[in-house]
Amino acid sequence: MKLTILGCYSATPRTFTNPTSQVLEVKNHLFLIDCGEGTQVQLRKFKVKFSRINHIFISHLHGDHFFGLPGLVSTFRLLGRERELHIYGPKGIKEAITLFLKLGDSWTNFPLIFHELKSKESELIFDDDVVSVSTIPLNHRVYTNGFLFKEKPVPRRLNINAVDEFDIETSQFKAIKNGADGVQKNGTVVPNQKLTDAPPKPKSYAFCSDTMYNEAILPLITNADTLYHESTFLQSEERLCEKTKHSTARQAAKIAKKAQVGNLILGHYSTRYKSIESFREEALEVFPKVELADDGKTFEI
Amino acid sequence: MKLTILGCYSATPRTFTNPTSQVLEVKNHLFLIDCGEGTQVQLRKFKVKFSRINHIFISHLHGDHFFGLPGLVSTFRLLGRERELHIYGPKGIKEAITLFLKLGDSWTNFPLIFHELKSKESELIFDDDVVSVSTIPLNHRVYTNGFLFKEKPVPRRLNINAVDEFDIETSQFKAIKNGADGVQKNGTVVPNQKLTDAPPKPKSYAFCSDTMYNEAILPLITNADTLYHESTFLQSEERLCEKTKHSTARQAAKIAKKAQVGNLILGHYSTRYKSIESFREEALEVFPKVELADDGKTFEI
Repeated sequence: MKLTILGCYSATPRTFTNPTSQVLEVKNHLFLIDCGEGTQVQLRKFKVKFSRINHIFISHLHGDHFFGLPGLVSTFRLLGRERELHIYGPKGIKEAITLFLKLGDSWTNFPLIFHELKSKESELIFDDDVVSVSTIPLNHRVYTNGFLFKEKPVPRRLNINAVDEFDIETSQFKAIKNGADGVQKNGTVVPNQKLTDAPPKPKSYAFCSDTMYNEAILPLITNADTLYHESTFLQSEERLCEKTKHSTARQAAKIAKKAQVGNLILGHYSTRYKSIESFREEALEVFPKVELADDGKTFEI
Repeated sequence: MKLTILGCYSATPRTFTNPTSQVLEVKNHLFLIDCGEGTQVQLRKFKVKFSRINHIFISHLHGDHFFGLPGLVSTFRLLGRERELHIYGPKGIKEAITLFLKLGDSWTNFPLIFHELKSKESELIFDDDVVSVSTIPLNHRVYTNGFLFKEKPVPRRLNINAVDEFDIETSQFKAIKNGADGVQKNGTVVPNQKLTDAPPKPKSYAFCSDTMYNEAILPLITNADTLYHESTFLQSEERLCEKTKHSTARQAAKIAKKAQVGNLILGHYSTRYKSIESFREEALEVFPKVELADDGKTFEI
């Protein structure tokens, strides 16, 4: 998995900081997560081949997470897109986007398919051979979901040196890849495990923004390889979290620690802070593996 | 009047070009004309004091002219705006903007007043002591208006040297400014024209985008000091004008010539052209005073 941060600052877009949007590459998929104003320009700036985006996941309907969506959908139309585009987001998103297109008398020439969410329980919203996506219900001022992206386990890989050493015929390779043991010319059976290597562990990525500190998400994100958790504030402004339903860097780190994730990426910084380095320092006091999101930064998961 | 171009390219925003938006400063007013995606960032970039914007004029509901509006209105809210904000635009604009705010459960804490337009005739939509604004019905794929901004005539100005020379008492100045003649100590009447200077001629600015070539606008824009007229295409692509209802640079210049305007500013360039200089060259063949809009450029009118 490869994660590209297009924007990771809260509230209003500014000259050099952008509201929330991320691209997650998982095998052949390019998933867009949230779409603040200016996302399409960020996609161009960081040279993302955005015609490859077929699935867009919107966490909630605050402007800094979806006001770039009408423009992106319109741009897909102008670029002559024909492939289906799937949009997953809170109930109401379909009415909003279709109204904007209708007013401009510019309906899309590609199928635009909305998957409106309203469940307060986690649900599986995308599933194919290589990856599944399920919602992570969050606690924010409006109905909000995070998203858990999980790679599917892949078969063990044929070990070319081993099949050569045991002198296994090529005609058996397909069966061995599918789990069969090998058979040598003299009839000796060679166990599958000797002829194949364990595949890389399937990766998982949990996106959790916006939310206040919420231990209810722990069962869903436990052992995730990477957790992106919002940290709008530092502990010095913790008093603002209850009213705004946001988290501090320390709270994000507490969630990361309790969920025993591989590493934590912080983002959705309030623009009141001069430097974002303090977010890392605060989180490191609680959890050892902390990264800072920043616009244009990429992470290998 | 001072015009700042925030964006002047057609269709999709790109890394270095922005869709339509302009700020027109007329005396104490700061008018925003159109609001493509990213307008609020352009306002910051060019250091426009955008809390001073109280009136926003939207020509039509294609995305490149209004998709930045929900974000700008939300930002006004986040900045704690209290003053009224007036939005003038085609019918439907109120439903669109209010839906986006409602979905985010974030209604404004300032009065947001919509003036929905649907007339196909020119109408006066704003009028105060210093300036009037009326619509210029255009011919585009959807209902579209341009806007004509006209300064009001101002009183003649007291000529300090003249009142000194004629030895007119200070107590008469106010009356003289209001048109009265002066009276010297010996009773001699001095005509007002000798004590005052003619004020600068009131300026006018006509914004016409998007539109196909349309002579019906001539009576409304004749003698305007400055005309901004869209030139999406060059003459070499004139065949596209009929279907898309846009204009070429040559057509914009023909309108400028027939309307005898002071000067012509071209904009709304299709992004298919590598350089915009060709637009000026084409227009100069028809009309002598041609300027090219570009993002961040300012014009004194």
